[in-house]
Amino acid sequence: MTIVHLVTPIITPGLRCLDDVKPLEEYGIEIRQSILDAGPASIECEFDEALAVPDTIKQCVLAERDGADAIVIDCMGDPGVRPAREVVKIPVLGPMETSMHTAAMLGTKISIVTVAESVVPMLENLGRLYGVKDRMTPIRVIDLPVLELDKDIERTKALLSEASEAAVKDDGADVIIFGCTGFLGCAESIKAHLASRNLNVPVIDPVPLTMITAASLARMGLTNSKKAYAPPRRKEIKGFNIPLAPHAIAG
Amino acid sequence: MTIVHLVTPIITPGLRCLDDVKPLEEYGIEIRQSILDAGPASIECEFDEALAVPDTIKQCVLAERDGADAIVIDCMGDPGVRPAREVVKIPVLGPMETSMHTAAMLGTKISIVTVAESVVPMLENLGRLYGVKDRMTPIRVIDLPVLELDKDIERTKALLSEASEAAVKDDGADVIIFGCTGFLGCAESIKAHLASRNLNVPVIDPVPLTMITAASLARMGLTNSKKAYAPPRRKEIKGFNIPLAPHAIAG
Amino acid sequence: MTIVHLVTPIITPGLRCLDDVKPLEEYGIEIRQSILDAGPASIECEFDEALAVPDTIKQCVLAERDGADAIVIDCMGDPGVRPAREVVKIPVLGPMETSMHTAAMLGTKISIVTVAESVVPMLENLGRLYGVKDRMTPIRVIDLPVLELDKDIERTKALLSEASEAAVKDDGADVIIFGCTGFLGCAESIKAHLASRNLNVPVIDPVPLTMITAASLARMGLTNSKKAYAPPRRKEIKGFNIPLAPHAIAG
Amino acid sequence: MTIVHLVTPIITPGLRCLDDVKPLEEYGIEIRQSILDAGPASIECEFDEALAVPDTIKQCVLAERDGADAIVIDCMGDPGVRPAREVVKIPVLGPMETSMHTAAMLGTKISIVTVAESVVPMLENLGRLYGVKDRMTPIRVIDLPVLELDKDIERTKALLSEASEAAVKDDGADVIIFGCTGFLGCAESIKAHLASRNLNVPVIDPVPLTMITAASLARMGLTNSKKAYAPPRRKEIKGFNIPLAPHAIAG
Amino acid sequence: MTIVHLVTPIITPGLRCLDDVKPLEEYGIEIRQSILDAGPASIECEFDEALAVPDTIKQCVLAERDGADAIVIDCMGDPGVRPAREVVKIPVLGPMETSMHTAAMLGTKISIVTVAESVVPMLENLGRLYGVKDRMTPIRVIDLPVLELDKDIERTKALLSEASEAAVKDDGADVIIFGCTGFLGCAESIKAHLASRNLNVPVIDPVPLTMITAASLARMGLTNSKKAYAPPRRKEIKGFNIPLAPHAIAG
Amino acid sequence: MTIVHLVTPIITPGLRCLDDVKPLEEYGIEIRQSILDAGPASIECEFDEALAVPDTIKQCVLAERDGADAIVIDCMGDPGVRPAREVVKIPVLGPMETSMHTAAMLGTKISIVTVAESVVPMLENLGRLYGVKDRMTPIRVIDLPVLELDKDIERTKALLSEASEAAVKDDGADVIIFGCTGFLGCAESIKAHLASRNLNVPVIDPVPLTMITAASLARMGLTNSKKAYAPPRRKEIKGFNIPLAPHAIAG
Repeated sequence: MTIVHLVTPIITPGLRCLDDVKPLEEYGIEIRQSILDAGPASIECEFDEALAVPDTIKQCVLAERDGADAIVIDCMGDPGVRPAREVVKIPVLGPMETSMHTAAMLGTKISIVTVAESVVPMLENLGRLYGVKDRMTPIRVIDLPVLELDKDIERTKALLSEASEAAVKDDGADVIIFGCTGFLGCAESIKAHLASRNLNVPVIDPVPLTMITAASLARMGLTNSKKAYAPPRRKEIKGFNIPLAPHAIAG
Repeated sequence: MTIVHLVTPIITPGLRCLDDVKPLEEYGIEIRQSILDAGPASIECEFDEALAVPDTIKQCVLAERDGADAIVIDCMGDPGVRPAREVVKIPVLGPMETSMHTAAMLGTKISIVTVAESVVPMLENLGRLYGVKDRMTPIRVIDLPVLELDKDIERTKALLSEASEAAVKDDGADVIIFGCTGFLGCAESIKAHLASRNLNVPVIDPVPLTMITAASLARMGLTNSKKAYAPPRRKEIKGFNIPLAPHAIAG
Repeated sequence: MTIVHLVTPIITPGLRCLDDVKPLEEYGIEIRQSILDAGPASIECEFDEALAVPDTIKQCVLAERDGADAIVIDCMGDPGVRPAREVVKIPVLGPMETSMHTAAMLGTKISIVTVAESVVPMLENLGRLYGVKDRMTPIRVIDLPVLELDKDIERTKALLSEASEAAVKDDGADVIIFGCTGFLGCAESIKAHLASRNLNVPVIDPVPLTMITAASLARMGLTNSKKAYAPPRRKEIKGFNIPLAPHAIAG
Repeated sequence: MTIVHLVTPIITPGLRCLDDVKPLEEYGIEIRQSILDAGPASIECEFDEALAVPDTIKQCVLAERDGADAIVIDCMGDPGVRPAREVVKIPVLGPMETSMHTAAMLGTKISIVTVAESVVPMLENLGRLYGVKDRMTPIRVIDLPVLELDKDIERTKALLSEASEAAVKDDGADVIIFGCTGFLGCAESIKAHLASRNLNVPVIDPVPLTMITAASLARMGLTNSKKAYAPPRRKEIKGFNIPLAPHAIAG
Repeated sequence: MTIVHLVTPIITPGLRCLDDVKPLEEYGIEIRQSILDAGPASIECEFDEALAVPDTIKQCVLAERDGADAIVIDCMGDPGVRPAREVVKIPVLGPMETSMHTAAMLGTKISIVTVAESVVPMLENLGRLYGVKDRMTPIRVIDLPVLELDKDIERTKALLSEASEAAVKDDGADVIIFGCTGFLGCAESIKAHLASRNLNVPVIDPVPLTMITAASLARMGLTNSKKAYAPPRRKEIKGFNIPLAPHAIAG
Repeated sequence: MTIVHLVTPIITPGLRCLDDVKPLEEYGIEIRQSILDAGPASIECEFDEALAVPDTIKQCVLAERDGADAIVIDCMGDPGVRPAREVVKIPVLGPMETSMHTAAMLGTKISIVTVAESVVPMLENLGRLYGVKDRMTPIRVIDLPVLELDKDIERTKALLSEASEAAVKDDGADVIIFGCTGFLGCAESIKAHLASRNLNVPVIDPVPLTMITAASLARMGLTNSKKAYAPPRRKEIKGFNIPLAPHAIAG
């Protein structure tokens, strides 16, 4: 078994995540999950993300200590992905980074469909960092708070279907990425809607894709470059208690 | 089992490929392979590649017909990847595209170490197409003909080690991609060499990485966008006999 | 006389090409033409293009042997342009590459008007390779099969006029490139239509422009860089019989 | 007086900052400063930065509440700049963003001279975000821990002089940015060194430049776009106690 | 006092400029202004700009001789900015360069609202030179001759308000730059209009922003790089009489 | 005959130009030339260029009036190219724009070899405008004043040979552009030198290439887009007397 640990960077328990990624077990992947002790109830802007990052890093450190083979951070802003790579040796993947690179292999014009206007600049910045900005069509927004996505899942799916259809028809998109991990489990439904309009484009559900990709990297013996993500120097830190492994401290 | 079919786009039998990717079977991947009936003995420039493409496409069509779940084309020039996607429904992956996107997730400065000067412009063009050109350090060359790589594999590894070390030390690379699938199986050795110099960077062996990635896409129900890679119109073709499936002809 | 050889990369005889480029003779250019023995009836996607390439290269080799001073490949996908450069010494030009670079000198926002959606990703990729992608407005499509363009040439011109007018008015284009060499001879008509709407933008008919450009390069003693396009190594090739000149084999 | 509040995103008191920016008072700028209650002793990688961000944001909120007209965050990684903009109305500036944009106005090839290899990828990513990556020469490193910069300030200046000279002579740089705010106060010395070698290039000391720029924006009535940096939704947050102003909560 | 000299690159006296920038005096900035002896009545295309440049440079040389600390050229095409930097030692700023870099710090999608279609290509070229092109939304035009802007200032403001509103609502812009210095003094009005539509985006009035920025650079001891902007060699010049300072001649 | 008018944007008579381009007459091209009444003795920086532009434009207007079919401006800074396009209807070409686009068709890594450091930033800016910046190797400089190039032409050629050889060997360039039109006539010599080192790369002599290209555009009925280069509005101009044709004034 390859252990992929999902760090969900919010404090809210009771997510429906594990059910939707369960099929991964069939491929020899053991799924573990942590949520945060400190942070926001949902991530919808840079402020929310900033508060999620420290405990996200801590959960990554703990996941590695507990034997995980790879880590996936469960938010499309990829919070804490780069700092976590500095303090663990196993691969740490963000679902947006993984989805953007995969989308670039599946199609040529990438549409992200997300929750709110407030995340658009931060997702566009990720597109710049990951090198796919000029393949992105304008990001589309369904304008629902993250914490309400589950309240009426059929409505969420209907809004996603509508936005995805418009992305393909009006923006020329040929591959769709869900811009919020809260849409987990909705891909089949949106794909069916598009197919009913004769629109055959891949719809990427980021969390399971990123988990299977993380398992693959671990199996190939690949992990994030320690030259690119060097461990921090030993120094005083106040207000955070992150039990760094010895390899996670330079010198 | 997930069937990943490796199309090796040359006419030369007796490659050592299957041994080196055998560990993939442990992850539920059945490996199949075809070589070409028509084409060059090795691919070292655009001319060689051009002659390899038609039969590569045919082998992809046959692989799909025979039940493959995904296809990987076994050459770092990614020959035939895009046309093949137009005539099969299963995912078709090129090892350079997959390696470049993966490298971009593992590090920040990508070095390609390859066989000959003659492939450099074509690999740089792929970097432009795949969006990673500005993260590439200058491509390094060991200057050995592909058909001689196996003759003295220790020498090949020594040259690769030297070039990779220079890429990291002198060019600042923090992740290495093998720029020829003929280097299959050399990654551990080069990684060990780098580690002995205290250089901890990932070394990507493209074929196994691309095969496990192809299996993952198939398992996730993802394939290349039919909007981006639409099937050809029915029309007269002379000199080639490619048994296209009905879904591979438009209209 | 400067001999410019047009290689038309399809098997279909009876094209109206030679009439439309005849005025070039006035400038001391002798026009020759070959069509393919093996390949598709028309080129409308990457698959068609892939099958056209090997014999296109062969026709280039033969054209050089027969005394051509320069070669133009008669398809906007520029099929075989780069591999052909590796095996001939005279300049080989693609009409898309030439048109994009010329358009960039004539205006600032380039619109390509082409036949079908299926060629759009491949033309956009050419835009990336040639460095003009960020000057391109969205590619416009008239949705006619290549083999029907000539059946009702007035309708073809009407559709081209309409698409070009929309490109200028709605997309802000200030220069038009025909995205299919099958539109040869339509430029005057489209230019007149645009002028009747008070829209004064250049309309590039790619084949004659590329032929006169190829003649100019030959006259200036310029040809494709042998460092960028090195000849292939001698090696076994099955299924193709291309009579390479001695200079076209390395070593 | 225009109040510019410097948030120094580390827990270490006793910085020599205020002396070096004191001349700003002459231009009607009142200088205030906060350091963090929670965070690292210095910032030398993404991990350090991540832990600095939450309290940095809090100090920005408090600074606004206490009447600041503009805020500058005192670290070249620009930690917390974007999230802070979401929760205050006054301009928040990062010294790297300001220095990169200013450098792009003063010269054409920008060299950043910084403390350690570990910050290089993160500074290059900022170059990508801010649009100056292709004007940057390779980042140069003096390899001193931040907390030791002050121990032997003459040695620090000597290393900076040497690195800056090499940047100009060997890399062709025509403008220098200090890549660590710990170099505050060293610009005159490095400029003098360069002038003694007949190298007349601007040397940007980021903190005072950013403070005077922040004051200018405030005086012009300009602040960060509330469309780009919308306030967060009201939601539960555990483990952080940031006294957001009413305007900093959406809806 | 810091002296900022505004060179208005047209021959037309009686501009309302000085009133609108007068508030800068409050910040210790002495304002001076020159207009041209030779040049066009307004700048609305590359031709106009070309004729304005020589005397603009001369006015910069005179301004430096007369004791200015910094120079701002009063036209959004930034005419003469780079050549003037070669012949003076004090900072020379263009309002478009300054506004684009500032806008990139304030928001993420920059809209320029300008006078006429004829300046659009030249402003887009500046976006390319300054590195912000991919952050620009399509430039909007109010289609009024520069010399008529003042005739009915309320109508000018109404057109600007309308164009700015459309830029934010339809193009997604989150920061506005006036694309003509003739709009000086209109920012408050446009900002109020946008606020009345609940659109809170910064509106940059380029001249005062550039003047205060120029003063700041002078105060920081920063000026344009003499390596990037080297003085001309001594040589014969006919038809122009520009009293270059000794430092403005090489060798 | 097709008349191509060369506007040499300096005041210095007695250039050796006409001899070196004489072979163009063989291709039906009539060569005319003008030099300036007002401007600098040579162009080696932005200041020189700025003073050359107004009379360059005037000479273009006169050339069109006198029956030229196309205009080439004889300086690698392309001074006045864009403004001149606004006031004539015939094609106006700059040798740098033409050479860069042609080089991009002939090779993949472009080296410019030029006279002095002072022109480097302006040539790099042209690379940005023309879309080839990322294909350029570092510009190389022979450090000779333009007015001395002819004094010892053998030494000039020796320096050019040396710089070109280093560009190919050390920078990986595969196509050379002369970065000063003063090198007219030196291409054969440099090409021979490179060939003697077994380096087979094209060497572009910009003026004859641009003249034949200009003739080709004229023969094809192509000229610069009037949408991109609209004529100026009628307005008062002081100090310049340019006899604009009626078509060169808007409205």
